[in-house]
Amino acid sequence: MSDDALVIFTPSGKRGRVPVGTPVLTAARKLGVDLDSVCGGRGICSKCQITPSYGEFPKHGVTVSESALSEWNAVEERYDRIRGLKEGRRLGCQAKVMGDVVIDVPPESQVHRQVIRKSATARAITMDPAVRLYYVEVQEPDMHEPTGDFQRLSAALAAQWQIEGVEADMPILRRLQPTLRKGEWKITVAVHRDHKGRARIVDFWPGFHDAPLLGLAIDLGSTTIAAHLCDLTDGRVLVSSGLMNPQIRFGEDLMSRVSYAMMNQGGDQEMTTAVRVALNGLAEAIATEAGVSPTQIVEAVFVCNPVMHHLLLGIDPVELGQAPFALATSESVSIAATDIQLTTLNPGARVYVLPCIAGHVGADAAAVALSEEPYKSEDLALIVDVGTNAEILLGNKTRVLACSSPTGPAFEGAQISSGQRAAPGAIERVEIDPANKEPRFKVIGCDLWSDDPGFAAATAATGVTGICGSGIIEAVAEMRMAGLLDPSGLIGSAELAGSPRCEPQGRTHAYLLHDGTEDGGPRILVTQGDIRAIQLAKSALYAGARLLMDEIGVDTVDRVILAGAFGAHISPKHAMVLGMIPDCPLDKVTSAGNAAGTGARIALCNVGARAGIEDQVRQIHKVETAIEPRFQEHFVAANAIPHATAPFPELEKVVTLPEVSFNVGGSGAEAGGRRRRRG
Amino acid sequence: MSDDALVIFTPSGKRGRVPVGTPVLTAARKLGVDLDSVCGGRGICSKCQITPSYGEFPKHGVTVSESALSEWNAVEERYDRIRGLKEGRRLGCQAKVMGDVVIDVPPESQVHRQVIRKSATARAITMDPAVRLYYVEVQEPDMHEPTGDFQRLSAALAAQWQIEGVEADMPILRRLQPTLRKGEWKITVAVHRDHKGRARIVDFWPGFHDAPLLGLAIDLGSTTIAAHLCDLTDGRVLVSSGLMNPQIRFGEDLMSRVSYAMMNQGGDQEMTTAVRVALNGLAEAIATEAGVSPTQIVEAVFVCNPVMHHLLLGIDPVELGQAPFALATSESVSIAATDIQLTTLNPGARVYVLPCIAGHVGADAAAVALSEEPYKSEDLALIVDVGTNAEILLGNKTRVLACSSPTGPAFEGAQISSGQRAAPGAIERVEIDPANKEPRFKVIGCDLWSDDPGFAAATAATGVTGICGSGIIEAVAEMRMAGLLDPSGLIGSAELAGSPRCEPQGRTHAYLLHDGTEDGGPRILVTQGDIRAIQLAKSALYAGARLLMDEIGVDTVDRVILAGAFGAHISPKHAMVLGMIPDCPLDKVTSAGNAAGTGARIALCNVGARAGIEDQVRQIHKVETAIEPRFQEHFVAANAIPHATAPFPELEKVVTLPEVSFNVGGSGAEAGGRRRRRG
Repeated sequence: MSDDALVIFTPSGKRGRVPVGTPVLTAARKLGVDLDSVCGGRGICSKCQITPSYGEFPKHGVTVSESALSEWNAVEERYDRIRGLKEGRRLGCQAKVMGDVVIDVPPESQVHRQVIRKSATARAITMDPAVRLYYVEVQEPDMHEPTGDFQRLSAALAAQWQIEGVEADMPILRRLQPTLRKGEWKITVAVHRDHKGRARIVDFWPGFHDAPLLGLAIDLGSTTIAAHLCDLTDGRVLVSSGLMNPQIRFGEDLMSRVSYAMMNQGGDQEMTTAVRVALNGLAEAIATEAGVSPTQIVEAVFVCNPVMHHLLLGIDPVELGQAPFALATSESVSIAATDIQLTTLNPGARVYVLPCIAGHVGADAAAVALSEEPYKSEDLALIVDVGTNAEILLGNKTRVLACSSPTGPAFEGAQISSGQRAAPGAIERVEIDPANKEPRFKVIGCDLWSDDPGFAAATAATGVTGICGSGIIEAVAEMRMAGLLDPSGLIGSAELAGSPRCEPQGRTHAYLLHDGTEDGGPRILVTQGDIRAIQLAKSALYAGARLLMDEIGVDTVDRVILAGAFGAHISPKHAMVLGMIPDCPLDKVTSAGNAAGTGARIALCNVGARAGIEDQVRQIHKVETAIEPRFQEHFVAANAIPHATAPFPELEKVVTLPEVSFNVGGSGAEAGGRRRRRG
Repeated sequence: MSDDALVIFTPSGKRGRVPVGTPVLTAARKLGVDLDSVCGGRGICSKCQITPSYGEFPKHGVTVSESALSEWNAVEERYDRIRGLKEGRRLGCQAKVMGDVVIDVPPESQVHRQVIRKSATARAITMDPAVRLYYVEVQEPDMHEPTGDFQRLSAALAAQWQIEGVEADMPILRRLQPTLRKGEWKITVAVHRDHKGRARIVDFWPGFHDAPLLGLAIDLGSTTIAAHLCDLTDGRVLVSSGLMNPQIRFGEDLMSRVSYAMMNQGGDQEMTTAVRVALNGLAEAIATEAGVSPTQIVEAVFVCNPVMHHLLLGIDPVELGQAPFALATSESVSIAATDIQLTTLNPGARVYVLPCIAGHVGADAAAVALSEEPYKSEDLALIVDVGTNAEILLGNKTRVLACSSPTGPAFEGAQISSGQRAAPGAIERVEIDPANKEPRFKVIGCDLWSDDPGFAAATAATGVTGICGSGIIEAVAEMRMAGLLDPSGLIGSAELAGSPRCEPQGRTHAYLLHDGTEDGGPRILVTQGDIRAIQLAKSALYAGARLLMDEIGVDTVDRVILAGAFGAHISPKHAMVLGMIPDCPLDKVTSAGNAAGTGARIALCNVGARAGIEDQVRQIHKVETAIEPRFQEHFVAANAIPHATAPFPELEKVVTLPEVSFNVGGSGAEAGGRRRRRG
């Protein structure tokens, strides 16, 4: 046996020679192989488990004998006895290389393991969280070398983990001495290392500690706050949860909240307090649901639009309400959770807020970009993040443009007569038979259609309570395809539309989607007001997209990605019938789900992604819809619902309503005139 | 006239050629001349005033014509009209170099001007404070380049002042937008640049602002808190003030406070709160006295012993009460004032705490080192900082040793029967005639001796209220020299000592220094207890010094520097008679006043000095008195007051008391025995 041996690691394929007797963990580090360890090779943490392979490996040109690794040792025996070691596994810090060997690093032993996302555009997140655990043994104090306990801990982190210049806030320093003594100078430290090279102690525990560190990825929307509680070790989402943004009581949309801040002394602070209280409650609730302590949450990553961003940070958003829409700060924000009174998290928890792209295009749009990566796309991709404000990105690897469009909350089921959040009991899918104009629908929480046998029994618990965002979009599109609406969006009378479900309501008509009164439930109608709200919203969305297309000089896009808290639920066909998005082959329209939330999750799990998106955001070209005259033109032009017959052959059969006019909130002449201009 | 001209600056002597038409300020910057400017050359701040010299300068080899600088311009005329410009002065940013010229930069136009200290060991402080004002003009927001206001301010600081990567906390960010708009995009920013390269915004004001920035240098002692309010522009001390440390109610000395923390749950936090409340009050009082707002205070520098250090920072000092006396943190601390609840200062104010040398040798000793610089001394210097705990430094440029000795508060007038703080009315100087044993004295606030005519009238306002630290030292030494005490420190009876002022008090005697009862004042006595307290204190001090001398292997030192809050007032002769300090030629004993406070002031005024002392502290060799058996030996041996006859010839005449013994807190045999062992 020569003095050194060949070690080949799989799956990385990294190989090299090490002296005989080298522990596998040491060999892995020397060869740059990604093998986890929290205890630094002391046989405590068991994170460095590996699987040796024996026999002939012609591909690698090596024969591995049974004695290629040292004998199973006492540490491994003890570990196996107490906690159990999978068949064939060894502890990398204990097993020594004795001869040529092939060693597999299983996924759970990799620090930078990958998490496969379940979305249509599956892309892996490489785990590289800002906060990790480090076990260290600290030199005991000595009267003849009177450095402070913190300095000796800092030296241990530098020597044992190459973490230089770690910082600690006063509350951490305060706890250090008793913790070190309790652990007899052994301590597990959670260190936050940001993408700018700073290292901070977040928390610590006496001795060896491996309760998983958790993080929150939060999409702070104007209407809803959605949070994912993630395990920072493996990226798993433990619980996803959400709640309504309590700021709604100060105004439904962004501009009404800015107005509230303008008109009321201290109004911005009221809204700041409201959202912070809600976030503390959300953190507690989500931790309870996951069966963990909220103090295990050591980092929270936020994505939000600029107004939410300012209100979260405690900055008056008043400048965002008027040209030139100046942000107080546009770059990413890295602060302590306590700086914004998020007190239910770990007391040392950090907060990272993604950068804003512009005064109207926020960190949520940046997060969508991080998730969908238009800057890496070969073809021209249009990404539409549908919310109270729509964030729109258009581009490819040459150039990316961004804008924001004030769609209002209609797409989220708000300002809709029977509207509600996406929750069990809400109608989420709608079909209307073009022949008899009768509807059928599905509600959240039940896989049956409403005309399937057993539907009533299956939904008895929740009932049919209202209609959510995706439901209203389908309802309006289906109504148009069934000939219940004319191109201008007017609902016909029972006679004109040919359905007794079209019932008069004031001077207009409403379509009865469901009558639950027999079972003590509501009558669910789609009113003329609902249609108008959806028309306004979809026109704004479409106009924003068109504006970016004008800027880039194209009439079509190669593909469309629908995103948003409920983006996964929007039917591409119905979105296109409605005219929410520009025409595009239907198979090129995909759904990315809550891409902003996913972007937040990526930034939470991979600290390097923060540097990446900060760099990209600087390069994205921003288009300000509010001052572009063409936005108004596109908006007005987009009001109609033109697609009763195109681009889908199956829609050809739809009968267009005769051109009639109704009085809607004005004189007949006005309404007629308006409609004609649109026609 | 050639295309460029020779410019010679005085007093620096820096010279070089610049293109004709170059403003003097630009020339100064190019040549590395220290010429101040807050407004960056916009003719607003007037800090860059210079004085050109005309005529022949053989020394410089140059002739300066009357047209060497450009004509007086409109900006200068306006400034002169409104605020007045001294005869011969020009504004450096307005006057342009037109020909060869000699330009003087007056002291008040230098950024790094020097402040001459008034102490015996006069040493200049070069002004280079951490916080300075910078006037900038910020680019207005633009919808087509949607960076945040903070990013544009940051860019302006980088472009106009070479301050890169400035940081701002949330409360600062919150105020930025309205301030920028109020100042029409002109803003004066107070930036804190620390010695580690970080730049932080402390405060800002719309437009041009030049109210001076102030700082506090605080010597936080166990017994007293002394603070200097300094102008950070020129280093002037506006007001010095002090108060008793309110923690005294938890224990007179350090160890009793540590015990309080050990014995009482939350006791450390009580003491932390007490001192922080007192500091807030002190900052307000000192600002009121100076006629300024406490919010002008943008930085506070603290020096203190390790226990005060931990209690200030909110860290339980319990580990400092037992071997190995481990500090929680030994390095310097740079934090926000609000991190330690100093809320009366500017909300953005910073705090810097000097590093500790060891568990018993604190930041106060580091400050004494910074002030007295033993590490630059050619000869062997002993520096004794007298307080409740004495900090002792011994060394020269080869090596410096440090220790701390628990003297107790007697030297500060505490635990003395008629003791009081140094304040008007306190006896600070004492002489006793060896012939008739009659005393005379001086009180603080009056230049007359008590036997001078007019003394009673001059002190009528304050009366004679007690005896301060320097007074009690002189009183005890004088009593010894007058033969009122024997070498063991016993006060003789009226008969033995030969003075009717020696009156019985219990089983011992007391010496009547002053009887103020006729004027309604107190009788001021020096009691046997007072003598014992002083003996304990001086023995501890002496033993510490001897320990360091042993360590370095010397029997004598070249010079002694007495420091301390009242160090300036200690008479070297009396200190040596008492045996407080090792023998040394009397002319080699100097007083440095409150050297710890001076060190704090240096660190406050010169940010570079912080890096310097941090480096020195790492190199100082620490000696731990508490575990050195020889400390006890020296302590016991130092109890006597041997110097009634030596080393000063004028003391030869003093008669030694006959060897008698008294019962002092024990049996006669014991006291006698003890005394004999000491004899």
